[in-house]
Amino acid sequence: MTVSKIHILTPIITQGVRSLDDVIPFEREDLKVTHSLLDEGPASIESEFDEALSIPDTIRKAIDAEKAGADAIIIDCMGDPGLNACREVVSIPVLGPCQTAMHVASMLGHRFSFLTVLERLRPMIAHMVAAYGLQENYASFEAVDVPVLDIHHDLGSLSNALSDKAHKAVKQNHAGAIILGCTGFLGCAEAIRAALLKDNIDVPVIDPIPLALHVADALVKTQLSHSKSIYPRPGAKRIVGYDFPGLCL
Amino acid sequence: MTVSKIHILTPIITQGVRSLDDVIPFEREDLKVTHSLLDEGPASIESEFDEALSIPDTIRKAIDAEKAGADAIIIDCMGDPGLNACREVVSIPVLGPCQTAMHVASMLGHRFSFLTVLERLRPMIAHMVAAYGLQENYASFEAVDVPVLDIHHDLGSLSNALSDKAHKAVKQNHAGAIILGCTGFLGCAEAIRAALLKDNIDVPVIDPIPLALHVADALVKTQLSHSKSIYPRPGAKRIVGYDFPGLCL
Amino acid sequence: MTVSKIHILTPIITQGVRSLDDVIPFEREDLKVTHSLLDEGPASIESEFDEALSIPDTIRKAIDAEKAGADAIIIDCMGDPGLNACREVVSIPVLGPCQTAMHVASMLGHRFSFLTVLERLRPMIAHMVAAYGLQENYASFEAVDVPVLDIHHDLGSLSNALSDKAHKAVKQNHAGAIILGCTGFLGCAEAIRAALLKDNIDVPVIDPIPLALHVADALVKTQLSHSKSIYPRPGAKRIVGYDFPGLCL
Amino acid sequence: MTVSKIHILTPIITQGVRSLDDVIPFEREDLKVTHSLLDEGPASIESEFDEALSIPDTIRKAIDAEKAGADAIIIDCMGDPGLNACREVVSIPVLGPCQTAMHVASMLGHRFSFLTVLERLRPMIAHMVAAYGLQENYASFEAVDVPVLDIHHDLGSLSNALSDKAHKAVKQNHAGAIILGCTGFLGCAEAIRAALLKDNIDVPVIDPIPLALHVADALVKTQLSHSKSIYPRPGAKRIVGYDFPGLCL
Amino acid sequence: MTVSKIHILTPIITQGVRSLDDVIPFEREDLKVTHSLLDEGPASIESEFDEALSIPDTIRKAIDAEKAGADAIIIDCMGDPGLNACREVVSIPVLGPCQTAMHVASMLGHRFSFLTVLERLRPMIAHMVAAYGLQENYASFEAVDVPVLDIHHDLGSLSNALSDKAHKAVKQNHAGAIILGCTGFLGCAEAIRAALLKDNIDVPVIDPIPLALHVADALVKTQLSHSKSIYPRPGAKRIVGYDFPGLCL
Amino acid sequence: MTVSKIHILTPIITQGVRSLDDVIPFEREDLKVTHSLLDEGPASIESEFDEALSIPDTIRKAIDAEKAGADAIIIDCMGDPGLNACREVVSIPVLGPCQTAMHVASMLGHRFSFLTVLERLRPMIAHMVAAYGLQENYASFEAVDVPVLDIHHDLGSLSNALSDKAHKAVKQNHAGAIILGCTGFLGCAEAIRAALLKDNIDVPVIDPIPLALHVADALVKTQLSHSKSIYPRPGAKRIVGYDFPGLCL
Repeated sequence: MTVSKIHILTPIITQGVRSLDDVIPFEREDLKVTHSLLDEGPASIESEFDEALSIPDTIRKAIDAEKAGADAIIIDCMGDPGLNACREVVSIPVLGPCQTAMHVASMLGHRFSFLTVLERLRPMIAHMVAAYGLQENYASFEAVDVPVLDIHHDLGSLSNALSDKAHKAVKQNHAGAIILGCTGFLGCAEAIRAALLKDNIDVPVIDPIPLALHVADALVKTQLSHSKSIYPRPGAKRIVGYDFPGLCL
Repeated sequence: MTVSKIHILTPIITQGVRSLDDVIPFEREDLKVTHSLLDEGPASIESEFDEALSIPDTIRKAIDAEKAGADAIIIDCMGDPGLNACREVVSIPVLGPCQTAMHVASMLGHRFSFLTVLERLRPMIAHMVAAYGLQENYASFEAVDVPVLDIHHDLGSLSNALSDKAHKAVKQNHAGAIILGCTGFLGCAEAIRAALLKDNIDVPVIDPIPLALHVADALVKTQLSHSKSIYPRPGAKRIVGYDFPGLCL
Repeated sequence: MTVSKIHILTPIITQGVRSLDDVIPFEREDLKVTHSLLDEGPASIESEFDEALSIPDTIRKAIDAEKAGADAIIIDCMGDPGLNACREVVSIPVLGPCQTAMHVASMLGHRFSFLTVLERLRPMIAHMVAAYGLQENYASFEAVDVPVLDIHHDLGSLSNALSDKAHKAVKQNHAGAIILGCTGFLGCAEAIRAALLKDNIDVPVIDPIPLALHVADALVKTQLSHSKSIYPRPGAKRIVGYDFPGLCL
Repeated sequence: MTVSKIHILTPIITQGVRSLDDVIPFEREDLKVTHSLLDEGPASIESEFDEALSIPDTIRKAIDAEKAGADAIIIDCMGDPGLNACREVVSIPVLGPCQTAMHVASMLGHRFSFLTVLERLRPMIAHMVAAYGLQENYASFEAVDVPVLDIHHDLGSLSNALSDKAHKAVKQNHAGAIILGCTGFLGCAEAIRAALLKDNIDVPVIDPIPLALHVADALVKTQLSHSKSIYPRPGAKRIVGYDFPGLCL
Repeated sequence: MTVSKIHILTPIITQGVRSLDDVIPFEREDLKVTHSLLDEGPASIESEFDEALSIPDTIRKAIDAEKAGADAIIIDCMGDPGLNACREVVSIPVLGPCQTAMHVASMLGHRFSFLTVLERLRPMIAHMVAAYGLQENYASFEAVDVPVLDIHHDLGSLSNALSDKAHKAVKQNHAGAIILGCTGFLGCAEAIRAALLKDNIDVPVIDPIPLALHVADALVKTQLSHSKSIYPRPGAKRIVGYDFPGLCL
Repeated sequence: MTVSKIHILTPIITQGVRSLDDVIPFEREDLKVTHSLLDEGPASIESEFDEALSIPDTIRKAIDAEKAGADAIIIDCMGDPGLNACREVVSIPVLGPCQTAMHVASMLGHRFSFLTVLERLRPMIAHMVAAYGLQENYASFEAVDVPVLDIHHDLGSLSNALSDKAHKAVKQNHAGAIILGCTGFLGCAEAIRAALLKDNIDVPVIDPIPLALHVADALVKTQLSHSKSIYPRPGAKRIVGYDFPGLCL
């Protein structure tokens, strides 16, 4: 029996936003989950600035996870921070939940809408859609205007706001799939989907972390990983201010 | 424990091209596979004509599979014949191995090349790339010029020919992932990848059926399916020459 | 004098939706029209399922038409069902009215809107736009929500509904041409164009069947047909359930 | 009987490059052709500079043709010079042979190659492909390096050179249709097609003027023209150096 | 010290729309500006017809400017009339303010909206966006419906109308930069930007002529010009009705 | 007189690769240049890993430069590391030499080729082309396979290798402009251009840093900067391991 050990790397320093409780229900005898937070970085990721500060320690945690025996890594943030840099330093598959969700949403519903917390993320999402080559599949972007760390204060009204935006995405922008664009929305998918079904709208509502977990498992089981020709290992060189054994001279 | 029952639907009438032996090694306690062939249709699929004749019975077999309790269906042909029509008549996820492989290849290697049997398939593949919105991720098409039903006559030289084409795809067209574009190539991936690694080329070589099997499992486990708003159930109407209970008046 | 014999192939089994009366006014000494319906297939085409069931007999009727001396074939449905498969089995030009209308609309008005019966066709039209490579020319899709077989019940209100949608397409989506996206709308173009002209909107309103008839004539007169290198004849093979002399072993 | 009077407007001053002899074989009782050359402009068109000098008198000749009773106008140059400006000043359809050929080639062969006289035209053709929204259908550009006015000096070797380029376009760039990209190549299509067929390459070779003539006829017969909302009539204003009654104050 | 002598070529015959007063504030010891109007051409440019009549004398004035020692030329019209033809006949950089503004706007704000005088210019702008390859960066087109020569009658209400359109472009179409799409709007940028800032919208508002002036200076200082391989000098040939020494036989 | 103070921020820790000597010849009375290196980061940038480690201190140095009175900032690396993050934290224009060069190259030569040090950078450049929306203008990527820090060991053979690649880019990929894709190539442009001119190839060869310097000056002189609505200032939050006054709680 091949056991897939999937490491979920939450690229922020804040405890409590993500715990293993969220994903433990998905564990099986052959699918195990581990988790880490950053020691250095921002409390949440809501800007390119935040992303930049999260990436160095994310890279380190990815290296650590591979050394500790993980079979795949999921970067637990919808900005996919450090995705390509992590792929350079490890050989095991590294998944961005945003990239994974966008591709699966394209498969299931032709065109997807992206629902997230803040309007200011619109250009960052557009940037990722372009980098992933999925412009033809991108229906719209919708924001509910709630900062990441306030998400859990009023889950009911958050869920309602998200359902309204999902409704608009389908009716006005003809989305065929909804992506919950903040990993902090974990668990809202069911309520949104129920609200849409009441209006006879039957589109998949994608909770990216459980999906990425199972796609990571699929890659491990089929022995696939990213291309090391596209994401080659960095050459060792002099580096000041960061300590990466084997990569810093 | 959620058990995923995945039905592999081979949309041709020829026995022996596909058997459960190919995929049984992937079965787990929570992942079971069933299989069907067509009763009516072509011996193999190498043209739009062949595809057209395969689709009506493919639709029927998809309906049957859902009734028999399958949790997801894989159409076992790289032309994804009848993919959208099947999605209209069932609610469980229906996966095309071509669509699945193209999306995962885009994730793992940025741009993919498609290796298949016959040059004449080039426009059909281009058509699918366009329909799936993946033109930016499509590096090249390569054919080894062997008819589908002759694939198994000389696996060694087939494998060499595929390795040469894969090498060209990476070096000349800068592919970051290779898709084995005929489900009959099942099992060649390992040899091709080994041949590439000898030349220091490290790109994923995707065997679409095992991949689709595990992605189907991922969808079942996360309770996702295609959008029924995008692929709505056909209205019942008068139909002559085909018998689809509930759909024909 | 070169006489063009154009065969109009209506890919449904329903008598009365199309008759030669519709196109006979266009006949000339050097332009003759014949017509056929399907023996097997659906009563109308409103889904990918319907399309799938229409294609096998459409292919047969295309072969029959070529044998009977037709110079070109028009598949009389805006889904262009079986277009590529028919091109594989005959050498005379086969035209899809949708493909023809989309290209001519792009020439005459830069960007076109597609007006049709049912919202559910939106993804099928998007699929064709992508396959034909015309995304840059596609302004919008509008549906009046009338089933195909009910079109003729109230032509006045249908015509009004279509005019309203055409108006919106021009004013909101900046369409420069309107395509009547259901061959059953034959004859409505004049009324829609008159309604638009009242509002000082002067855009071509394309009735696809008369247009395809004359473009087919143009191809016959200039001795052009589709590429048989792109749409090569299928190899003969064992086929069960369908009888295609010369193609089935 | 509707007679289509098509005016062929050759936008250069050189007599003898085009004569009615070229197209008279296509005349029918209901299809009549007239012709004009420029009084002012260049001897041939091989640059944007040449085009610029050809357009003012082309516009005048288009106005004259409409006044003289023409039903449609073809601008007899593969640069489609003045196409949009002419559409502004007349109501009858104005066709560019390049635009017409590119759209029909896309229909018949999916992707087309453009064969012409001079390498220097490559950016001008790319510009038109972009303006017409046909990038996805553009396979390649090939030039035989012969100035326009030398075309008729050695038709045999021109035809061979064009056949070689067409062969390369199909085999290397996977073109499914060939456009003869200089209206001076009129009459070469048959020889090129014969040469390709010898190598089992069966793709349409499009001679743009006969094709445009018949597509113009198709538009006249179906009463379609370009959108006057997209190409509105210019307002009258003060103009120095040109005399356009009704447009100059 | 390298002095850049930039020639502003206003491609109309109307005096008073542009004077050196507009740009003299930007002169420096090392940046000098000269100016010319057309002798032959239209009073303003609001159509493809107007453009066509402006280009021959624009080419002549470009040749004259180079001979008179200019280091770069700016064609002072947002239709960039004759841009490529002028590049063929001179070696010094020729800039179109539209092309320049669109590229800089893409750099500063990701996606830009184009504000101009008349709705009828929409297709001409779309054509330029396509020719410049900037579709992904084009957010929207907005027109205030004022003829070019009436712009200066009521600058206050013009400025208000432009501010409203800019506001809509940002809020509805998510533009990150505004291009003033008529060189006659020179001087309005500051008022529009102030109006947007009042609503907390901070996007660049581009006045194309001052920008083009400084980008032209940047090219001169870095010794860059357009490619003469892409815009090669026209061969001399017989030309009637125009006198271009060295280009007409 | 408006003096532009441009800060060149070299995002590596290695002294000697860049000095003010390179750009001082471009200084004028109204154009002054300052310079900084990183205190923390990599010795050179040749991977996404290197980039990630360079960005935090690049952000800090950008903040410092604005505080010190700079009018614009150029990030002196062709990967444009931290471009968007820097734009979030400052209000003065921040330019990436890659973005600037790609846009200007598109203006001057329609399609550009990118010449750089290492084949491994191909996906990173493709990523930027996509993010900047310039796919239609991207002709090719060529690498000479020399590590950044070895560039200065043999400038003669480097220059020859670059000339050969530029030649290929023009002849095979039809590039109309060449971008020197490593800021370490500063000074090679003249030799490459001379080599091309010997073969009658006249395309601009862009040295990105001098170009970016003058485009930055153009922005300062016209008072344009990036959109703060697209790149809004990050909210202050708890950050561990980095000290950004005003941004870290």
